[in-house]
Amino acid sequence: MPKISQKGHDMPESPIRKLVPFAEEAKKKGIRVFHLNIGQPDLETPRSMINAMHNLKVRVIEYSHSAGIISYRRKLCEYYARHDIHIEPEDIIVTAGASEAILFAVQTCLNPGDEIIIPEPFYANYNGFATSAGVKIKPIISKIEEDFSLPPISEFEKVITPATKAIIICNPNNPTGYLYSYDELEVLRETVKKYDLYLFADEVYREFCYDGRSHFSVMNLKGVDDNIVLIDSVSKRYSACGIRIGSMISRNKEVMKTAMKFAQARLSPPSLGQFAAEAAMDTPDSYFHEMIAEYSARRNTVVKALNNMEGVICPNPNGAFYVTARLPVDDTDKFCQWLLEEFDYDNQTVMLAPATGFYSTAGAGIDEVRISYVLNVEDLKTAMMCLEAALKSYSGRTL
Amino acid sequence: MPKISQKGHDMPESPIRKLVPFAEEAKKKGIRVFHLNIGQPDLETPRSMINAMHNLKVRVIEYSHSAGIISYRRKLCEYYARHDIHIEPEDIIVTAGASEAILFAVQTCLNPGDEIIIPEPFYANYNGFATSAGVKIKPIISKIEEDFSLPPISEFEKVITPATKAIIICNPNNPTGYLYSYDELEVLRETVKKYDLYLFADEVYREFCYDGRSHFSVMNLKGVDDNIVLIDSVSKRYSACGIRIGSMISRNKEVMKTAMKFAQARLSPPSLGQFAAEAAMDTPDSYFHEMIAEYSARRNTVVKALNNMEGVICPNPNGAFYVTARLPVDDTDKFCQWLLEEFDYDNQTVMLAPATGFYSTAGAGIDEVRISYVLNVEDLKTAMMCLEAALKSYSGRTL
Repeated sequence: MPKISQKGHDMPESPIRKLVPFAEEAKKKGIRVFHLNIGQPDLETPRSMINAMHNLKVRVIEYSHSAGIISYRRKLCEYYARHDIHIEPEDIIVTAGASEAILFAVQTCLNPGDEIIIPEPFYANYNGFATSAGVKIKPIISKIEEDFSLPPISEFEKVITPATKAIIICNPNNPTGYLYSYDELEVLRETVKKYDLYLFADEVYREFCYDGRSHFSVMNLKGVDDNIVLIDSVSKRYSACGIRIGSMISRNKEVMKTAMKFAQARLSPPSLGQFAAEAAMDTPDSYFHEMIAEYSARRNTVVKALNNMEGVICPNPNGAFYVTARLPVDDTDKFCQWLLEEFDYDNQTVMLAPATGFYSTAGAGIDEVRISYVLNVEDLKTAMMCLEAALKSYSGRTL
Repeated sequence: MPKISQKGHDMPESPIRKLVPFAEEAKKKGIRVFHLNIGQPDLETPRSMINAMHNLKVRVIEYSHSAGIISYRRKLCEYYARHDIHIEPEDIIVTAGASEAILFAVQTCLNPGDEIIIPEPFYANYNGFATSAGVKIKPIISKIEEDFSLPPISEFEKVITPATKAIIICNPNNPTGYLYSYDELEVLRETVKKYDLYLFADEVYREFCYDGRSHFSVMNLKGVDDNIVLIDSVSKRYSACGIRIGSMISRNKEVMKTAMKFAQARLSPPSLGQFAAEAAMDTPDSYFHEMIAEYSARRNTVVKALNNMEGVICPNPNGAFYVTARLPVDDTDKFCQWLLEEFDYDNQTVMLAPATGFYSTAGAGIDEVRISYVLNVEDLKTAMMCLEAALKSYSGRTL
């Protein structure tokens, strides 16, 4: 049998995936599982997107332009302008989700062996894209005690080497929910300018900001246009992860020209998804106001409940729909499996994401979990009761 | 400004893409351009697929399973069974077109520096995927004088080295239309078995077989299940390139388990496209009978017209919707640009694909073009008249 590749061996497997069979077994036993482990919003997809499919008028579902349908890219420019981000259609390549945008950015900007700095915990799939591109991730730790704020520039400088080519941030952050401030982004601006690095910013949760806080985009950092690559997606924004429409955006012409060669090699982003995404651009502001009110109430529910549990530490983040919390347990990989395999509370249990998958430093995050608040408030309350009961009866409790 | 990557520099640009601005200019001048340069079928997408969108009933457009929606994979198994290919849903990963399937196959099976043998001319984007994965293509020439049939095993053996890991074939072939015979596939079977290689077979044109010829799939080669990876797509089959739904298929469990890690890193193939593709699985046989009759008539038109032109050589291939023809010109890159930039025949001209983009050997294919017969017979007749007139007035004519 021919061998598989080294990269194939090295590709990480998500700790969440390993739990899926245990969740399926629990369900077979009649246990209701509250899924707090996923990044799939439960809110209804805007009607305009579904209507775009209902009213589809094409004879042939054709390839689109490799950079995406021009009318959609123009609408995207209007969307960004409303967020005070001013770009042209040629600064955009429409991609199959943010996933493909990250892949294009890494392939365009980094050589195998190059290093990329990411504050951890970070979105688990960055590990996959790094492995796939043969790039090394250099993590710097954001501390739960400091609400997962950006580590100081001195921490970045400790790991910068001649092989360092880029920094990735996700803002608001998955998995911590942390919303970076203007001052923190200024620190990044100075760093990438001083060391001539790329800054890849994943801003797919741009609208998900609470407590009246607003989002500052890396696209508005001054004097670093050539360093900035924006990774974006409509998946979370419009509760439409399945359409697989993201974008890679940069004002660096050489980066975009090169990324286009990768885009052309895969011919076209999904056309149906683009039709839906274009229709979504007219989603009224009221959709987002309701969404923000709903997620804000959910976050309050979860953060309050967690901090009322003995030994649990949970910051109160301003963005996205995740929190990363510290639990008084030996090992959250074990605890999360036990929740599904052995525990129930009135025939109910919770599925959480062990945080180890969001760290690249071995052993980091061993007592942390990511909780996605993608259920309604009532369900979240019940889920939190389950978790509280579970923490009391788990044998690996550290309190 | 930070540098772009070496791969980014090395990514090939298709010679067709370079012609696009010239085609746009020609159109601005009021010239009608017959597009024989593309692989986008013009036939109507089956009604069932459009209806699936019109009847879309979902509250949220969610991620699908990373390997694809299970009901779609089951339907795919039924489709394959009708073609005498017997597989299980777990042998399938649904991908964003054949493009992503090739990417997964190469990343799963080959290390950077490994070599892959491809009979040339070959589908131009294989170059892109090879560059992207850091893999070397070793071409072996299929000759126009031999109708682009498979080179003998001795030609493969001349280029096999310890670094050789795979062979790719496309059957029926893009860009030659050649349909490999059972005997030719047996030669490949023996070769991959003897040298322990993977055989990646791109069979996206499976249904496009003419003159009563039938397609033999690599999935039915005996005793080499672990060596075979099938690359497939519904794009051409159902004239629905824009849905971006393909698949990577293998009975090799380790290959599929590894490919799943790459699939999980990009979360999900497009859901809307999968809904459409699932509906397509019920497309009646009559759709294909009509399609084959239509393409067969088109091929006859093009092949006959070409061979009636002085100095033109064109085999009569049995599959796909392409021919690769030799023209009596100095350089088809120049000729194809001249067709758009300087020539017109009654305010009409043709856009062809220069064949150099389909060869990896420098200089090969310099006097060949690929012609896609994706227009109706009347338009093809006019397009061929344009081409004949052009060949007579082109200054770089070699006759």
